[in-house]
Amino acid sequence: MKAVRLKAYHELPVVEEVPDPTVKGPFDVLVRVGGAGVCRTDLHIIEEQWAGAMGVALPYTLGHENAGWVQEVGSAVSSVAVGDTVILHPTPTCGLCRACRAGDDMHCVNSSFPGLSGDGGMAELLLTSERACVKLDSATRPQDVAALADAGITAYHAVRKAVPLLYPGTSAVVIGAGGLGHIGIQCLAALTATKIIVVDRNPEALKLAEQIGANETVVADGSHVAAVQDLTGGRGADVVFDFVAEQGAEQDAFAMTARAGSYFVIGYGGTVHIPTLDIISTERNIVGNIVGTYNDLAELMVLAQAGRVTLHTRTYPLDAAVDAIQDLDAGRVRGRAILVP
Amino acid sequence: MKAVRLKAYHELPVVEEVPDPTVKGPFDVLVRVGGAGVCRTDLHIIEEQWAGAMGVALPYTLGHENAGWVQEVGSAVSSVAVGDTVILHPTPTCGLCRACRAGDDMHCVNSSFPGLSGDGGMAELLLTSERACVKLDSATRPQDVAALADAGITAYHAVRKAVPLLYPGTSAVVIGAGGLGHIGIQCLAALTATKIIVVDRNPEALKLAEQIGANETVVADGSHVAAVQDLTGGRGADVVFDFVAEQGAEQDAFAMTARAGSYFVIGYGGTVHIPTLDIISTERNIVGNIVGTYNDLAELMVLAQAGRVTLHTRTYPLDAAVDAIQDLDAGRVRGRAILVP
Amino acid sequence: MKAVRLKAYHELPVVEEVPDPTVKGPFDVLVRVGGAGVCRTDLHIIEEQWAGAMGVALPYTLGHENAGWVQEVGSAVSSVAVGDTVILHPTPTCGLCRACRAGDDMHCVNSSFPGLSGDGGMAELLLTSERACVKLDSATRPQDVAALADAGITAYHAVRKAVPLLYPGTSAVVIGAGGLGHIGIQCLAALTATKIIVVDRNPEALKLAEQIGANETVVADGSHVAAVQDLTGGRGADVVFDFVAEQGAEQDAFAMTARAGSYFVIGYGGTVHIPTLDIISTERNIVGNIVGTYNDLAELMVLAQAGRVTLHTRTYPLDAAVDAIQDLDAGRVRGRAILVP
Amino acid sequence: MKAVRLKAYHELPVVEEVPDPTVKGPFDVLVRVGGAGVCRTDLHIIEEQWAGAMGVALPYTLGHENAGWVQEVGSAVSSVAVGDTVILHPTPTCGLCRACRAGDDMHCVNSSFPGLSGDGGMAELLLTSERACVKLDSATRPQDVAALADAGITAYHAVRKAVPLLYPGTSAVVIGAGGLGHIGIQCLAALTATKIIVVDRNPEALKLAEQIGANETVVADGSHVAAVQDLTGGRGADVVFDFVAEQGAEQDAFAMTARAGSYFVIGYGGTVHIPTLDIISTERNIVGNIVGTYNDLAELMVLAQAGRVTLHTRTYPLDAAVDAIQDLDAGRVRGRAILVP
Repeated sequence: MKAVRLKAYHELPVVEEVPDPTVKGPFDVLVRVGGAGVCRTDLHIIEEQWAGAMGVALPYTLGHENAGWVQEVGSAVSSVAVGDTVILHPTPTCGLCRACRAGDDMHCVNSSFPGLSGDGGMAELLLTSERACVKLDSATRPQDVAALADAGITAYHAVRKAVPLLYPGTSAVVIGAGGLGHIGIQCLAALTATKIIVVDRNPEALKLAEQIGANETVVADGSHVAAVQDLTGGRGADVVFDFVAEQGAEQDAFAMTARAGSYFVIGYGGTVHIPTLDIISTERNIVGNIVGTYNDLAELMVLAQAGRVTLHTRTYPLDAAVDAIQDLDAGRVRGRAILVP
Repeated sequence: MKAVRLKAYHELPVVEEVPDPTVKGPFDVLVRVGGAGVCRTDLHIIEEQWAGAMGVALPYTLGHENAGWVQEVGSAVSSVAVGDTVILHPTPTCGLCRACRAGDDMHCVNSSFPGLSGDGGMAELLLTSERACVKLDSATRPQDVAALADAGITAYHAVRKAVPLLYPGTSAVVIGAGGLGHIGIQCLAALTATKIIVVDRNPEALKLAEQIGANETVVADGSHVAAVQDLTGGRGADVVFDFVAEQGAEQDAFAMTARAGSYFVIGYGGTVHIPTLDIISTERNIVGNIVGTYNDLAELMVLAQAGRVTLHTRTYPLDAAVDAIQDLDAGRVRGRAILVP
Repeated sequence: MKAVRLKAYHELPVVEEVPDPTVKGPFDVLVRVGGAGVCRTDLHIIEEQWAGAMGVALPYTLGHENAGWVQEVGSAVSSVAVGDTVILHPTPTCGLCRACRAGDDMHCVNSSFPGLSGDGGMAELLLTSERACVKLDSATRPQDVAALADAGITAYHAVRKAVPLLYPGTSAVVIGAGGLGHIGIQCLAALTATKIIVVDRNPEALKLAEQIGANETVVADGSHVAAVQDLTGGRGADVVFDFVAEQGAEQDAFAMTARAGSYFVIGYGGTVHIPTLDIISTERNIVGNIVGTYNDLAELMVLAQAGRVTLHTRTYPLDAAVDAIQDLDAGRVRGRAILVP
Repeated sequence: MKAVRLKAYHELPVVEEVPDPTVKGPFDVLVRVGGAGVCRTDLHIIEEQWAGAMGVALPYTLGHENAGWVQEVGSAVSSVAVGDTVILHPTPTCGLCRACRAGDDMHCVNSSFPGLSGDGGMAELLLTSERACVKLDSATRPQDVAALADAGITAYHAVRKAVPLLYPGTSAVVIGAGGLGHIGIQCLAALTATKIIVVDRNPEALKLAEQIGANETVVADGSHVAAVQDLTGGRGADVVFDFVAEQGAEQDAFAMTARAGSYFVIGYGGTVHIPTLDIISTERNIVGNIVGTYNDLAELMVLAQAGRVTLHTRTYPLDAAVDAIQDLDAGRVRGRAILVP
């Protein structure tokens, strides 16, 4: 089959023929890929940022955001069958540890991460496990939903955790109306009646934000912390969702957070520097957020199939994977780039 | 009456005669003070650290940790009567704002703070409001419980928030087994079955910690983060209660916190410096904690009256207030210094 | 002033002149009534059903669902001022008991209930307390929102409690699309992405339900339990909101509730008969619901002022109060009858 | 191997030789039984009460409360190994359905129930699945803990759900201080600081209750509802745990429940008859409780291994199973009867 192979760090990957993966374990599922999202994390992988953490040997196949159709199943697989349309949770989990059993499967102590810790789904076929498969309506086109597998689930997970904090009369700030933020805004509008304030440097992104649920938009031009204070009666926002969390956004985000409010960190790259006095005197929280649970993904697919969360995508044939990666790196992609084998 | 008056910053206060406060508003309550705790915050007040935030004019009476007996009540007071033994919530609240009505009265938008924002309770009489009075069993001696009014409520509030996180099989670290930490340990033992690990520089404090509920103790000698990792099977603690939060404790505390765990900041003075990547990749939380609610104080008094939380105190006559302050400053007080008018 | 006075049980009330109420206590608020809802409870009062529980002496003024403008305030009132537009929580509370301080003020141990336990608001003026006043935008017409003060808050309270149970992919049944149910449907649509299934005997009511947020409607014709099972894949609904709870609805409601689901009782009149085996073998819950909190009312007003909850009302001049009561009793009122002094 | 076989309903089972079960599926685990609890449910099975629900063909082996040592494992088993000491969750679950993934595995849509739906563990060997095995310290004797596998987990599950309701100052009633209740009392004492009031007909049972954590005891002699009201200041209890739920206990339990409180149904056999008015006017809840989750069992084992929950047991050799069953039926067993192969 064809696959997008990373052969050396700091070099572009190569589309080439590799042997087809095969079902071996009783719970293996082989998926014919219908859509594979291209993510900034792929750029970071190429830049060797994840090499240490993941300990994977080159060459290997990129791609951690996939949907497709079940091609073959292991002997003990019972919940999906050949031909089923599926979207894949990015981290196949063990199902046996306390976290998996408690509904916190993103904290599974034995999970893998195809596309980071081994061969991923920028390919014609992807080998995963039964536990990662969310079955979809057969009418769903994998390329239309693939980006929900990682970008979507991460945004949804953060919003869902915040729902109890966002009753009518509260305000939520979304910093960064790009790939994840754009899904987060739609999730907020679907799950809460909070006032949604979106902050971004890019006026175009804010225009889109208004169409998908933002109540107020603020250009991040240096006066944005003050603008959020104004829009919240001087209180700050009850929850600030920071999809950027670098280049100063992480300090602005905390400054925008109301007394007794919560700063949800979702992006990464920066460093928070906060006096403990500022944390305790206002009883604010800083809340970490990682990719969501399998159930989060299943819930998000309900919203997607009901048309309440939609994605802006641009498709590329698998052979053009390098173009997609270069376009992403150069800022030429609006929405999400999706490879279609 | 006699009162401990701060007449100039950076100078010791003076015990002198001042006019008795008098009941004016319909909800005023005049309390004859039976015990007034001396707190490190009093040292900080003298050092002018709170002058800006509180905007109080000198001279005024110190003391924000008080219990006593009701001496006189305003015309509309219905829930306490002359002669009642009471402990006083440190911040009389409005009862009308959203926070007061939501059970978050420490976030009242109209509260005062006697002893910081106006005359406090290191005196024979203290003027407060009905909303601040928790009625006690008449057998209770105010001097035995006064320190629960501020130190106690703060420790209890943090522990109570963490109860859902601390099911059997989890671990909790308490950093700092002093005034607050010492109450926190007892609250943890009363409300949870978590494994309690106490970290302190002082081996004497750790000895006491063992007697009041610590399952493990660790001397903070530079190897303490590693020691906590060992005691938790390499996971770190599910909740770390940091009663110090300065001089590096704030970084150690986060490093001791398990994946998906929470770092509860209670002390203050330092600054957290944490890469957002470390927050999101492990989905950890940093949770601010401030003084508790009125209901927290009432619940803590139930524990105290059942003998499940006890205080180590050293009493001083009101006239010896300056001695108490100097002893505290010099590290000569074990437990809490209490002025008894 | 004019007031609607109940002079004898089992007789229609009389509109007559009575002395104006006057401000006496420091927290009293005198409100010029702009709208007074007529509720089925008023019919039950006339029928003497509440006489025992409330112990009120005749004659007195009916009306427990009111909005208007502040006319005069007591000496200690600080949060509303003369001229403010307000909607009134139906039960002025003490603010001092544990329930009030915990955000459960509907369980205040010292509340009153104007219109049931004393003079109510079917009059030109109503005497209430500061704690009952929710300040509104001055553009709001009291007659447009008055029905939210009791019918609305009750429906909102039940829905809000259920929000954590109603994530995407769940189903909720609303039994009874009348006064309360009709608000409940709008609250569900505003606060959740659950599938909303509405059950009512009246096809007209179901038609309205579809316009305001129902995803599915079911005529209660004897096959409705089976119909709900069909619409939920045989599981039953995760939450069943029963705004009827009499005449068999209470048994149907439990039968429609999914394993691990919750039956929310809101209406009354019937009796649940359920084997304990049925409760435990499926781990279902039966959840009581009463009028909401002050904060619930404030939140609901945010939804109303944003146009997300609207009321169908029919207004009557205060002099025509008896007509309104008779129309309600005869089933001639669509939506809510509102008296306008 | 020897096994306790039910050959005909309404007849005592027979201990006889049957073929050893064998590992077949990749996740099968064969356990050498070290202790098998004898439960009232076994009596009900013999009486044919479960025949319809479980649809099992006779003869088969009884026993649903087991602990022992791993004898053999399937090809894919990774979390336990031959020789491990284990206690077995009573219902092996699928791990794939929403409930399993949400931490609600007692609501698994594909679970089995050895001892009810197929061969159980009153035998030398029991075939179960990896998902049911909780690994124990190798020093643990299976016969000492087996009864926690079903009786224990059920009591623990109910108490753990109630923890957030039982802060200091509240009261909890335990109705029935027998097998389950006796564990429930210990769990309450370990996890909360609530006042524990135990109600039982048997003064001997109450004597034991006092030793293991009851603060107050009440003989169920007809005046017990009034006695509970007295002990709770006329309020009733915040949570009533009803381990009986038949013969009138279910009505008494609701009558003992405070306004805004919760009646936890755990036993079964009776029928609740409650006017919906009584449910809504006080906003009380009726909460179903079934066997707990795998994580509940793991947590309970932490309490057991720390000595905070202990069991009173009487052991019988496997050959004497019929004696044990007859003793249980005749009320001659104190604590729990445990078969030891």
